[in-house]
Amino acid sequence: MDKLADLGSQAKTAVDLAKGLDIRRIAMIGCGSMGGGMAQLFAEQGIFVALQDPNEAVMDDLLASAKQSGIPDTLMKKCSDYGSLCKELGTPKVFVWSLPHGSAGDGVLEGLMPWLEKGDVVVDCGNEHWENTERRQGKCVTKGIRYVGCGVSGGYQAARRGPSMCPGADDETLSLVLPTLRKVAAKDPDGKACVGRVGTGGAGHYCKMIHNGIEHGMMSAISEAYTIMRVGLGMSLDEIADEYDRWNSDGELKGTFLIWISRDICRTTNDKGSRVLDEVEDKVVQDFTGEEGTGIWSNTEAITKHVPAPTLTSAHYLRLASGNRYQRALIQKTFGVGSGAPKDSHTAVYPPQKLPDIPNRSAFLEDLRKAVYAACLAAYCQGMIIIDRADREYHFNIDYTELLQVWRAGCIIQADYISNTLLHPIYHSKTTKPSEINPLYEPAVAKDLKKCFASLRKVVARSVEADHVVPALGATLEYLKYQTSTALPTDMYEAQLDFFGKHMYDRKGEDAEGRPETGKCHFEWKPA
Amino acid sequence: MDKLADLGSQAKTAVDLAKGLDIRRIAMIGCGSMGGGMAQLFAEQGIFVALQDPNEAVMDDLLASAKQSGIPDTLMKKCSDYGSLCKELGTPKVFVWSLPHGSAGDGVLEGLMPWLEKGDVVVDCGNEHWENTERRQGKCVTKGIRYVGCGVSGGYQAARRGPSMCPGADDETLSLVLPTLRKVAAKDPDGKACVGRVGTGGAGHYCKMIHNGIEHGMMSAISEAYTIMRVGLGMSLDEIADEYDRWNSDGELKGTFLIWISRDICRTTNDKGSRVLDEVEDKVVQDFTGEEGTGIWSNTEAITKHVPAPTLTSAHYLRLASGNRYQRALIQKTFGVGSGAPKDSHTAVYPPQKLPDIPNRSAFLEDLRKAVYAACLAAYCQGMIIIDRADREYHFNIDYTELLQVWRAGCIIQADYISNTLLHPIYHSKTTKPSEINPLYEPAVAKDLKKCFASLRKVVARSVEADHVVPALGATLEYLKYQTSTALPTDMYEAQLDFFGKHMYDRKGEDAEGRPETGKCHFEWKPA
Repeated sequence: MDKLADLGSQAKTAVDLAKGLDIRRIAMIGCGSMGGGMAQLFAEQGIFVALQDPNEAVMDDLLASAKQSGIPDTLMKKCSDYGSLCKELGTPKVFVWSLPHGSAGDGVLEGLMPWLEKGDVVVDCGNEHWENTERRQGKCVTKGIRYVGCGVSGGYQAARRGPSMCPGADDETLSLVLPTLRKVAAKDPDGKACVGRVGTGGAGHYCKMIHNGIEHGMMSAISEAYTIMRVGLGMSLDEIADEYDRWNSDGELKGTFLIWISRDICRTTNDKGSRVLDEVEDKVVQDFTGEEGTGIWSNTEAITKHVPAPTLTSAHYLRLASGNRYQRALIQKTFGVGSGAPKDSHTAVYPPQKLPDIPNRSAFLEDLRKAVYAACLAAYCQGMIIIDRADREYHFNIDYTELLQVWRAGCIIQADYISNTLLHPIYHSKTTKPSEINPLYEPAVAKDLKKCFASLRKVVARSVEADHVVPALGATLEYLKYQTSTALPTDMYEAQLDFFGKHMYDRKGEDAEGRPETGKCHFEWKPA
Repeated sequence: MDKLADLGSQAKTAVDLAKGLDIRRIAMIGCGSMGGGMAQLFAEQGIFVALQDPNEAVMDDLLASAKQSGIPDTLMKKCSDYGSLCKELGTPKVFVWSLPHGSAGDGVLEGLMPWLEKGDVVVDCGNEHWENTERRQGKCVTKGIRYVGCGVSGGYQAARRGPSMCPGADDETLSLVLPTLRKVAAKDPDGKACVGRVGTGGAGHYCKMIHNGIEHGMMSAISEAYTIMRVGLGMSLDEIADEYDRWNSDGELKGTFLIWISRDICRTTNDKGSRVLDEVEDKVVQDFTGEEGTGIWSNTEAITKHVPAPTLTSAHYLRLASGNRYQRALIQKTFGVGSGAPKDSHTAVYPPQKLPDIPNRSAFLEDLRKAVYAACLAAYCQGMIIIDRADREYHFNIDYTELLQVWRAGCIIQADYISNTLLHPIYHSKTTKPSEINPLYEPAVAKDLKKCFASLRKVVARSVEADHVVPALGATLEYLKYQTSTALPTDMYEAQLDFFGKHMYDRKGEDAEGRPETGKCHFEWKPA
């Protein structure tokens, strides 16, 4: 910490911390769709951007795109190596990274190291694993280099228009870079930038990872609802688009980015006038190709932190099954799905059917909206609980109000009602951080989930009867039941463990506090 | 490998590999319920057992228990340190470990090292993480020491009567120890020992970890069915015991250990004549207390290997929620479960009710049996698919016929029909190992799952309507649907990713092989 204090006094003499660094020149390392978009955003702020990418064609495309956007060519320059790149920068040198996670960043840091000096800044905007981020922060701090792990969300279009930025670093380093990040970050409806002091160390990348886990839970629920409308209710794509539009315009799903784009997806036609969605194959392969680690890590984090996250993980397993379409096709052949015996026979698996017993379609669509909301809110809750657990274990010093501000606009999980109307007041009111923040302890959250419970139950029941694929909706229903119950079927489970494993149990009512501690009783169910 | 070859020729001169080592003296390090039970088993085979445990009282209890069992006191001896322990052993020295996972084993190996000589053998019978096992194997092999990672299943009673043993090591080391392990391992109905050449390196501990994952999926399904019978159908514990007995006696759940003990649990009374099960609290805390890692690792393995394992993970999340009973009680208070509005209102979460619409109880119980079977079989399939993926990635050289023999008796997932009648012929027929073994590709497995599908659907639908907690049953139903479908709701999911992330998609029918590779198309759904 001496080193940091040292950096601090240096910074205090060189710049006004409240104003941050006056950053006029940056290096963009990695100029793909995300890095390229951000490079143009910086240039539009009058900041000179020196480019570096192993693929020269990628940089040429970026320069052409910048020209088209009217960015003066004096504001961007390709550089062929780290030496020439560093010569283009000011003091301190500021690097923005947009790299694949893992070894790429280690290689770049290693390559840059000979040119780095005390006070230089790296803002790592990739989807890096937070432990890599903290490892590099540790490596850098001993040399006086500042390393910010900054999750960036919103996709390639947001990277161009203004992404949601989720930075983590020591407080002083954040002070130095935040003014510049605020210029390029997305703005909420009040004009406030979607970037902030999320936390220390790898907190930014950690929260971005969980953002992606929440994202997947929401995407699954919305996609499950899509097939229910299309196949289960026989609605046209225009009708479905109108329904998504209704959800997005008012009520608890108001201002939900993923619903807004789902509406647009339903309406989008190709140059032959047919719907693009109808040509899209059903496989999501990101987890297999390795391009995205966050979907995997957010789920392993839930498990290793002992946080039930069934909405997230059921969505993830559906993604995995979908990605391996080759395997599904082989299995389908073995199972002979949809062929042979009639639907009521006991010898077949069938594809989704029209939903039975829907006398009032618009009432059912309202149930469906509430079911999707319950899943989206449950995904948020599960994510926030994982972050809370990690925060206490890794001492991230998360500022939840700042985090919710980061998610306010520009990111994939943007959901105006959930993050702003529902959650913000809850987290904002916790002026002193209690030992545990759990949205499920909050009356406002409970009220909403209770309001949706009967609808979610109806949607899942009907979907089950008609063989619809509803893993995230179904898992959310189970989650709401088992998280609110104090009489789970696990009494039998616990008895089994004590029977064969002498694992001990507590007698009902004797575990006054109910903490997860080894029980005090063992019964010799069957003497050895 | 020179070292191993060297060890090999040494062994060949010293012993007949086909007969293995003539082990007459062993050290048992860790004398808790598992180690103590195994120590007595070895002694009953006339093998002298030198004991070591940090807690002397534990060794005294073991000696008293051995005396009661009629084991001559010349066959067991407490030792106070590694030096005196090693003096009690023959050549080579053979150590059996029964230790907690993690640093304990490292400490013991470090402590033993000064006394270890070329050819000495460690058989690690704890629930160690397979990576720790391989790390120690690497450390030992350079010193000519043989280290076997041997998963032991069956609980404390099986450890006393004969456990299922799942060893992994190089082939020659297994040859040396298997004859002795066969003496103490459980025997299947044909008298064949439940131990074998499972695989190389950490294969034994890997498969034991997955065994525990499967175990949890099965336990959850059986426990969910218990509450359905008790609360949903209003059955008495004697009636439920009779039903478990029926399941266990005939059909696809025949000879299923967990169902057998569930029957006994239902019938067990305490000295006041009341049922013990009724006093057991509903919290399973193993994952929190750290005493068991396998439940956690089996699920993170599924995720990192890209294998959908929803039966395993939904069970795990229920366990986690159950363990944190304190949290559930707080959440229940906030939600006001079961109070207030009537059941059909849209503002409440309710505890499980009597199942509606069950005109024929025995027909429904048959549906329930099939649903539980589907979940148990799905848990087995998910586990086998994880092992296959790991086998190919880590080069475990798994012998699946041997593995199924290990699970044939003495272990918690013993399920005579599943492992012996259904799976054994499938894996036995694969004389040359193909690139992928997936039970879902097998007609016999598909036939069984199809036969159960309508029953599973009915059980889940009725349970959902009556607010029963059925995460493992529900997740299994979703699994069967999405693994057999080639028209998943993920077409919308994929379109969303391409919309905001330019993640690319494939056109329907254009991904001839359907491999999980990045798609070839991108559409500018909304020009930037």
